[in-house]
Amino acid sequence: MAKKVLIVGGVAGGASAAARLRRLDESIEIIMFERDGYISYANCGLPYYIGDTIQEREKLLVQTPQAMKERFRIDVRINSEVISVDTVKKCVTVQSKDRGVYEESFDNLILSPGAKALRPNIPGIDNSRIHTLRNVPDTDKIKAFVEEKNPHSAIVIGGGFVGVEMAENLKEKGIETCLVEAAPHILAPFDEDMVISAERELSQNGINLYLNDGITGFSDTDRGVKVHLKSGKVLEAELVILAMGVRSDTEFLRTSGIELGERGHIKVNERLQTNIEGIYAVGDAIEGIDFVTERKTAVALAGPANKQGRITADNIAGLQSTFDGFLGTSIIKVFDLTAARTGANERTLKAAGIEYKTVHLYPMSHASYYPGAFNISLKLLFDREGRILGAQATGYEGVDKRIDVISAVMSLKGTTEDLTKLDLSYAPPFSSAKDPVNMAGYAAENVRKGFSHMTTWDEVLEDEEDFVLLDVRNTEEYELGHMEGSINLPLNELRNRLGELNKDKRIVVYCQVGLRGYIADRILTQNGYQALNVTGGYLSAKDYLY
Amino acid sequence: MAKKVLIVGGVAGGASAAARLRRLDESIEIIMFERDGYISYANCGLPYYIGDTIQEREKLLVQTPQAMKERFRIDVRINSEVISVDTVKKCVTVQSKDRGVYEESFDNLILSPGAKALRPNIPGIDNSRIHTLRNVPDTDKIKAFVEEKNPHSAIVIGGGFVGVEMAENLKEKGIETCLVEAAPHILAPFDEDMVISAERELSQNGINLYLNDGITGFSDTDRGVKVHLKSGKVLEAELVILAMGVRSDTEFLRTSGIELGERGHIKVNERLQTNIEGIYAVGDAIEGIDFVTERKTAVALAGPANKQGRITADNIAGLQSTFDGFLGTSIIKVFDLTAARTGANERTLKAAGIEYKTVHLYPMSHASYYPGAFNISLKLLFDREGRILGAQATGYEGVDKRIDVISAVMSLKGTTEDLTKLDLSYAPPFSSAKDPVNMAGYAAENVRKGFSHMTTWDEVLEDEEDFVLLDVRNTEEYELGHMEGSINLPLNELRNRLGELNKDKRIVVYCQVGLRGYIADRILTQNGYQALNVTGGYLSAKDYLY
Ligand SMILES: Cc1cc2nc3c(=O)[nH]c(=O)nc-3n(C[C@H](O)[C@H](O)[C@H](O)COP(=O)(O)OP(=O)(O)OC[C@H]3O[C@@H](n4cnc5c(N)ncnc54)[C@H](O)[C@@H]3O)c2cc1C
Ligand SMILES: Cc1cc2nc3c(=O)[nH]c(=O)nc-3n(C[C@H](O)[C@H](O)[C@H](O)COP(=O)(O)OP(=O)(O)OC[C@H]3O[C@@H](n4cnc5c(N)ncnc54)[C@H](O)[C@@H]3O)c2cc1C
Ligand SMILES: CC(C)(COP(=O)(O)OP(=O)(O)OC[C@H]1O[C@@H](n2cnc3c(N)ncnc32)[C@H](O)[C@@H]1OP(=O)(O)O)[C@@H](O)C(=O)NCCC(=O)NCCS
Ligand SMILES: CC(C)(COP(=O)(O)OP(=O)(O)OC[C@H]1O[C@@H](n2cnc3c(N)ncnc32)[C@H](O)[C@@H]1OP(=O)(O)O)[C@@H](O)C(=O)NCCC(=O)NCCS
Repeated sequence: MAKKVLIVGGVAGGASAAARLRRLDESIEIIMFERDGYISYANCGLPYYIGDTIQEREKLLVQTPQAMKERFRIDVRINSEVISVDTVKKCVTVQSKDRGVYEESFDNLILSPGAKALRPNIPGIDNSRIHTLRNVPDTDKIKAFVEEKNPHSAIVIGGGFVGVEMAENLKEKGIETCLVEAAPHILAPFDEDMVISAERELSQNGINLYLNDGITGFSDTDRGVKVHLKSGKVLEAELVILAMGVRSDTEFLRTSGIELGERGHIKVNERLQTNIEGIYAVGDAIEGIDFVTERKTAVALAGPANKQGRITADNIAGLQSTFDGFLGTSIIKVFDLTAARTGANERTLKAAGIEYKTVHLYPMSHASYYPGAFNISLKLLFDREGRILGAQATGYEGVDKRIDVISAVMSLKGTTEDLTKLDLSYAPPFSSAKDPVNMAGYAAENVRKGFSHMTTWDEVLEDEEDFVLLDVRNTEEYELGHMEGSINLPLNELRNRLGELNKDKRIVVYCQVGLRGYIADRILTQNGYQALNVTGGYLSAKDYLY
Repeated sequence: MAKKVLIVGGVAGGASAAARLRRLDESIEIIMFERDGYISYANCGLPYYIGDTIQEREKLLVQTPQAMKERFRIDVRINSEVISVDTVKKCVTVQSKDRGVYEESFDNLILSPGAKALRPNIPGIDNSRIHTLRNVPDTDKIKAFVEEKNPHSAIVIGGGFVGVEMAENLKEKGIETCLVEAAPHILAPFDEDMVISAERELSQNGINLYLNDGITGFSDTDRGVKVHLKSGKVLEAELVILAMGVRSDTEFLRTSGIELGERGHIKVNERLQTNIEGIYAVGDAIEGIDFVTERKTAVALAGPANKQGRITADNIAGLQSTFDGFLGTSIIKVFDLTAARTGANERTLKAAGIEYKTVHLYPMSHASYYPGAFNISLKLLFDREGRILGAQATGYEGVDKRIDVISAVMSLKGTTEDLTKLDLSYAPPFSSAKDPVNMAGYAAENVRKGFSHMTTWDEVLEDEEDFVLLDVRNTEEYELGHMEGSINLPLNELRNRLGELNKDKRIVVYCQVGLRGYIADRILTQNGYQALNVTGGYLSAKDYLY
């Protein structure tokens, strides 16, 4: 008899597994259960449909049950919730809108139930103006509200990826929107110094940010809802979007014997098999290994979900296929700005007790003499041995490219030295002869080899010893603005004016972005001074401290 | 006494070496000789300055002798040609505009004389309307001609990178421009099937192409010059740009004892040292190892030249630094189109006797449901073991990113399987959950593992056996245009209509881009048919055969 494979969840992970499995094996019986009425929809496009950037609703529906049946001979059962799994009898219990409750047996089971939006137990949260966004029905509700009620104001709660995308899209619809975030900064995957440009981009586009402020309650008003904040502030709007994060949607597995992690994620091995032979799990619902810290982690992103779906199909079809851990590469458009990252950030590294070094550069997105080049703010985290731990970048062009290249190198366990050797495509409209990624490699290697002595503004401001703060930019640049307490000695005069500097004091150098500071560091160090160069220079101070 | 390092050539390789060397060592005496009046100029920007995309001439001059002196304490000697090298006495002879002929001794010598434009001995070539383009003086001449004479017509001879960029830029200036290329196609680093879109882009922008046609001579006319072609055609224009390739500019080394290759390139080891201890060479003038074929090669590109300059400085300063071979990653903007490539192409692989397989995909540049997505034409070359041999791509967005990612993987000796595992940044404006690079990895792995049986239109057209040509697209697509002799059986009906197909004949399947063909291949193969799927599908036939 043909093997029978059941799939729970019909979107990113589930549908990918189904399609691949069919391609690998015509004979398997494949049944895919989906609680909602839609499968294979573009979750990631939902905010843009609400904001009218995507205009046709059908475009969100990548596959339909009918099409999945015709092309892949998958038995797609929508409006069918799997309410429990019997790992001993090897069957699931299904609650179907049409067919009531029934059991279905399996040889293999693939779990891809995803994650659902958090809706914490806060007074007043059950208000019809307060929405979460996960799927097509949620989207239809928000869209209908926006089209029919024509709200003038909205509050987004939560500054994660979905919250920021929703704030942007509501604003694009002409709705006055503000964003509330309990943490000191939005977009937690980014370090503080890197996320500030995204916050500025939001503000400049008219989105008020309430950072470091939690929600204590909601209350009804005539025309809207009031949001009460910890700080005592009260905001009011006609529409509220809750985007406070997600939780794996695994309650139906609680008593199944399938092992779950502390926060309800399904535990899997590197072949994505659960503790029960023949039962696999993928996507937002699983817990995996962080590629960098090697600690447990969960990553709710579509790339891993799709790839894991395919890996699972491979394993069920008898191929050996593994998932090697989460790098967590991710990206977001914030109006005109792009912010992307891969690997660990400073917070994660500190939590994991991993020692790291950073360089922060502002290379141009393409040759500076060719029109349309913008600075990319690029931060690289690495260790003493040159292992790359993570990277973050923001800018207006070519941010995705640089993070993807670094992610690829990390994926292959390449080092900062490898970054210097990459042969990346160069013509003036696209890059520079030394690409920003090469440049980050150079800067990191210089630190590793002791040619470059980097510090950060954080360290400088905490420094209690006496030091000279030396601004090596031109006098005109210095006069336009400089760090308090700094003295100016333009780089090109440094060699001739070394006598003016006290050899007994540490010299903390900065320039505009760190390049001239590095050259000053080289000159000073070779002349017997103890020098430190502030990575990212004045630009990162302006970005970060002000 | 301080070490004394001489550098020949003050642009990409030379100036990079000088700057790095000074950063590494304040004590070395560094003298840089440049034959012309300019150093550190942006060769790559020259065509765009002629075309007015870059408007300020000063922007092309990245560094000046004065600035190099002030910042890096380099003794820059312009208008100073090194006319010979004495490797025994360790000195060079310099012909200086100001100082006449003199000798200068060295401890180390760095050669970065670059390459000069070919100007073959063709009748009539010494005409003041016929220009080559290498440096600032050449640019000034062409620019002056264009501004003063206001020519209405131009002929570019040679369809390499510089020729194509010049054709585009002259056209942008409003000059009627055509391009002559002796080979059957322009842009030799690309395979025939990949370069056709670039040729179409040129034609659609009003640039007439004369392919497969060499030059036999030039003759003067009243208002211009006639270009006589092998085919007998005669073209006429007011301005001619010769862009027939380059030759290493190494005549001054002929009798030096420094070993040169067959075509005059300087031979170096992986530390970029010549056969003479202490003498290094970099850039367009050297011969190196092809990263993929491991054969001798020469690559005239700015990325390698800059990096090699830095590597040489490292080695002179006592660091161990190597150049690991040429991947030849390169890119060109052709009006709105981008074409990029890395590694070997089919021609190079055939010449090196390396067996290879190809996949050709047309994935979208970003999520298809998000506005502004375009197909990328992406071709991957790989071998039986999954080693990546090369990649080429054309398209309108994200071409550079995909080639850079593949180049990074190749640089780290990654495989097609590694491509499937890359965690690349995904949000709808930037990519898809399975990035085009992942997709190329999947397609290649399917070929390697025997799940996918690919063929090309070339092979299909040469096939002499009897086969069924099966178009598995929808009937509407078929009716809009299909391959001659094909029968139509839409993919979604295939399983039910298998009986209509003859099991004794090979079935060659195609669809629009290769994806449905692959699924048909899977269905047919598993049902006992011998199937082949045409990679790239009907789109690549349209691109390539017509
Ligand atoms: C608004 C939004 C924007 C996003 N943007 C991005 C982005 O730009 N980039 C990115 O990488 N990721 C993005 N994501 C995340 C991405 O969509 C998810 O990581 C991915 O869809 C997870 O795939 P999955 O298969 O694990 O879960 P899902 O795709 O969520 O699919 C799970 C499905 O299972 C069903 N289900 C759950 N339990 C059961 C059950 N017991 N029985 C039957 N069916 C069940 C659910 O109804 C659901 O349809 C976004 C998500 C949202 C909500
Ligand atoms: C128009 C044009 C566009 C280009 N576009 C691109 C592009 O988009 N991307 C890319 O990667 N590459 C591009 N290149 C190629 C790139 O510029 C070269 O690969 C790079 O400059 C080579 O560096 P190099 O140091 O070897 O030689 P060069 O940069 O050419 O420098 C050599 C210098 O040495 C001097 N010299 C030679 N002999 C002597 C001597 N005996 N004594 C003293 N001085 C001497 C020469 O006058 C010259 O200034 C382009 C080149 C041109 C001409
Ligand atoms: C669409 C969906 C059902 C997956 O379908 P899929 O068939 O696996 O994916 P694609 O249509 O991209 O096709 C990929 C397959 O085509 C193959 N392929 C792609 N282009 C090809 C080409 N030109 N030639 C040959 N094969 C090709 C790939 O190798 C791959 O096959 P494999 O997995 O057997 O190796 C699933 O991804 C889905 O539901 N997506 C929407 C939901 C979602 O992901 N949401 C979150 C993000 S918004
Ligand atoms: C400009 C030129 C002289 C090279 O100068 P350079 O100083 O080596 O190069 P850059 O100005 O890009 O600076 C790179 C250095 O700054 C360092 N750097 C860059 N940003 C930094 C930052 N934010 N913090 C610290 N260091 C930084 C790099 O590590 C590198 O130093 P290293 O080589 O010692 O490791 C040379 O490239 C040149 O002449 N270019 C024009 C000619 C040319 O290339 N033509 C062909 C292409 S159009």
